[in-house]
Amino acid sequence: MNGAESLLRTLVAAGIDTCFGNPGTSEMHFVAALDRVPGLRAILCLDESVVAGAADGYGRMAGKSAATLLHLAPGLGNAWSNLHNARRADTPILNIIGDHARHHLQYDAPLTADLPALARTISHWSHTVTSSCNAASDAARAAAAAGSAPGQIATLILPADCAWNEAAAPSPPLPPAPAAPPSNAAIDTAAQLLRAAKSPALLLRGAALLEPGLDAAGRIAEATGAKLLCDTFVPRLARGAGCVPVERLPYFAEQITDFLAGTDLLILVAANPPVAFFAYPGKPSDCTPHDARIHTLAHPHENAPAALDALADALHAPKSPQRRAPLQKPALPSGPLNQATAGMAIAALLPDQAILIDEAATNGLAPYAFTANAAPHDYLGLTGGSIGWGLSAATGAAVACPDRKILCLHGDGGAMYAPAALWTQARENLDIVNIIFANRSYAILNLELARVGAGVGGSHARAMLDIANPTLSFTDIARGMGVHATRAETADAFSQQLAHAMQTPGPHLIEAAV
Amino acid sequence: MNGAESLLRTLVAAGIDTCFGNPGTSEMHFVAALDRVPGLRAILCLDESVVAGAADGYGRMAGKSAATLLHLAPGLGNAWSNLHNARRADTPILNIIGDHARHHLQYDAPLTADLPALARTISHWSHTVTSSCNAASDAARAAAAAGSAPGQIATLILPADCAWNEAAAPSPPLPPAPAAPPSNAAIDTAAQLLRAAKSPALLLRGAALLEPGLDAAGRIAEATGAKLLCDTFVPRLARGAGCVPVERLPYFAEQITDFLAGTDLLILVAANPPVAFFAYPGKPSDCTPHDARIHTLAHPHENAPAALDALADALHAPKSPQRRAPLQKPALPSGPLNQATAGMAIAALLPDQAILIDEAATNGLAPYAFTANAAPHDYLGLTGGSIGWGLSAATGAAVACPDRKILCLHGDGGAMYAPAALWTQARENLDIVNIIFANRSYAILNLELARVGAGVGGSHARAMLDIANPTLSFTDIARGMGVHATRAETADAFSQQLAHAMQTPGPHLIEAAV
Repeated sequence: MNGAESLLRTLVAAGIDTCFGNPGTSEMHFVAALDRVPGLRAILCLDESVVAGAADGYGRMAGKSAATLLHLAPGLGNAWSNLHNARRADTPILNIIGDHARHHLQYDAPLTADLPALARTISHWSHTVTSSCNAASDAARAAAAAGSAPGQIATLILPADCAWNEAAAPSPPLPPAPAAPPSNAAIDTAAQLLRAAKSPALLLRGAALLEPGLDAAGRIAEATGAKLLCDTFVPRLARGAGCVPVERLPYFAEQITDFLAGTDLLILVAANPPVAFFAYPGKPSDCTPHDARIHTLAHPHENAPAALDALADALHAPKSPQRRAPLQKPALPSGPLNQATAGMAIAALLPDQAILIDEAATNGLAPYAFTANAAPHDYLGLTGGSIGWGLSAATGAAVACPDRKILCLHGDGGAMYAPAALWTQARENLDIVNIIFANRSYAILNLELARVGAGVGGSHARAMLDIANPTLSFTDIARGMGVHATRAETADAFSQQLAHAMQTPGPHLIEAAV
Repeated sequence: MNGAESLLRTLVAAGIDTCFGNPGTSEMHFVAALDRVPGLRAILCLDESVVAGAADGYGRMAGKSAATLLHLAPGLGNAWSNLHNARRADTPILNIIGDHARHHLQYDAPLTADLPALARTISHWSHTVTSSCNAASDAARAAAAAGSAPGQIATLILPADCAWNEAAAPSPPLPPAPAAPPSNAAIDTAAQLLRAAKSPALLLRGAALLEPGLDAAGRIAEATGAKLLCDTFVPRLARGAGCVPVERLPYFAEQITDFLAGTDLLILVAANPPVAFFAYPGKPSDCTPHDARIHTLAHPHENAPAALDALADALHAPKSPQRRAPLQKPALPSGPLNQATAGMAIAALLPDQAILIDEAATNGLAPYAFTANAAPHDYLGLTGGSIGWGLSAATGAAVACPDRKILCLHGDGGAMYAPAALWTQARENLDIVNIIFANRSYAILNLELARVGAGVGGSHARAMLDIANPTLSFTDIARGMGVHATRAETADAFSQQLAHAMQTPGPHLIEAAV
């Protein structure tokens, strides 16, 4: 067996069964080994931005790493921005990057670059294989690094000769570092502080936002009156009917400051203190009230649900929270189509256990609000702020959860970054409804232009924020990639098209004219 | 005036008049200053891959830097792969990257990353502005770095507060380092070696491949019998009727070795010795015959045309070369459409002074051969090997040369990386004919799979090289972005559509079914 095959067998032994990739010549031995190694599903994406976004969506929903297969430094460059989003979500991802054979690097052929340096800028762990005999053991280490709590970006560079030369055997899996046990001292202090606080709040993230964590947090809220909060952009949040509700922090810094006014205790549960997304002249970046006590109950790599449960016990909280979101589906809307009516239709039609991917930016607010009491679902946010993620993340989430409906809410500006994700959705017949909110503008930037003190903008400035000319037709673009697509200009049409898409398996795209 | 305005005025003073960009909140003061500073044309691109590819195409044709405007580290990540292609072409580019305000970085907001480290992986020169008062002088240094011979990637990171705080005045331009004068010793040695050589060749690159350089090289060829060669992938080559012809090195290593067999002297003119694009098991990477003498006449940063002229004089060569490519337009083809008939139609219909952008991969061979005797034109190649460049490079070349027709030959796989370039072509009404060779495959990889010794591939492997399912419709995709598009399935239809597109200003796309 060659190095590539030993590496693939090691990945499978480590529990990695999915690889999103876009290979080139330096990855051909990895590709050929796919036919000799059962158990690794390879999914072709038409650019590496899709590869990385899909691996992110997959990892958030599967709770384990996908592998990516990337082609030298330019392949990693194309993947970089969606890996950034994944890194900010603590998503486990194992990148396998083919590189030139070691003896070939000295010749500085056209695709040569400083790949190890580039890998370090985006990876928690990175390494270059130095012999085909080490490919398997390096892959085992990489898989363990990716899977270590809370989830990491691990990058293994595989020179072509280390793939094609002979190797001995695959490596047995190495255990990833599990979530660290909670700190008793942190729990005791939290209990004391909560008993004394007048207006406490818990800011939850990571595993604390899945059902066991939310249940434990709900117990604490009922025992202490603490508010339960989450960041504006969460990796994953269980919400909808039956879930313990959390309040989302608003986006703008001064809104967060207003929202937290009066809070005298902020307990961090696998979260960081809330800060402004961007800086603005004369406005503070730190949004926690200055007289509030901040206490860390659990760091991101610690077992947050266990910490919450232990804290609830210490507070003699009820065994199960009473307060859960009721199911309240709105009526299907009529009249003009806007984010409110779209949100009502989405909330009304969202099936049980759907997965909601949100890169709708300014148009995501009403859908988020209306789905608070929709059927139970998981919600995934744009954690790293790099637009062009949603269509790809939806692709990966659908691969991870083939029995669940995926609903992807997307802005039109962001959707133009990696529309090729639609092709993989069609190729794999994934059960995804993509909704593009076509306002033909980078709408958020029209707000930000004034907010940063740059005025209202003249004609040249405004032209840089306006994508109306020429008109983008997402129905044409989607059809060009094999995805069924319609356009809705009224709430009624939107509801009808969404109902049809919800009932019809496979990928769909609805261009919502808002 | 604020830092952003002082920076813009400095760019304009340094002769930079074009900025391709995709801004975000941290760039709003730069955007607002566009209305206060005349002389800088800002062109919106829908992702940063298009931004960088366009800046590359612009720089190669304008012979000077465009600015790019990028949004934090993810924006640079998206631009990385096309900046790599530009770096390999010695294209001058000045990246302006907005970053968080300096006091905001400590809060590790979602878009935060190690931007300076990322910038170093792709830039010849990089720097972070530390005060609004320095923005102008730093911009002057950056513009000089970008423009220094032979052309560099210069990256200036502009924290938002350094854009919005007050500044004094723009900076006067700094002179970029010009091409170094040729070395008399290198010229003398070259003359001696050429007189003694039996089978000499000159490998030309950079400015040596534009008309003055080619004329001088042609003089040498006529005085000595030396072959004139260029790399497979050239930044820019003047060719067609009236130009001194050069032979292009083939792509595969063993083809290069065969091609150069018997050569006893290889003179490098702003070029490196030819090497294999990829390594293959058991095959050498270095393709120069081992007993050949290699002599560097001019390094890339030296004045190669002057060196060639001086060498021609030293050899008492004729003042002007006799051998120039004749004009030989093929007849318009009939019958099946393939790269040969497509190449004939292109050669027949190519207008005078067109610019040919080639990312056609396997389908580019026949068009290249047939255009050798077409009307005079410039030819731009994929220097860095990172696919997804051509549509964007065509966009930038058209901005640089509004009076010339641009013909972009593209593979279908590569075209799916950054199809959004088409939208900017439509928005700016650029005179570009995009030809997509739709073979529905990463065809080169089917060859490479066997060449690297990985066999013919099983069904899983072949699926990773095959983009036929689902069918991509480039006409739908192009229309979705406002570009006139047709599909040709015969040589006659292709010729008719190409003739129409050549006569009709504005962007067109022809999907060539090959």
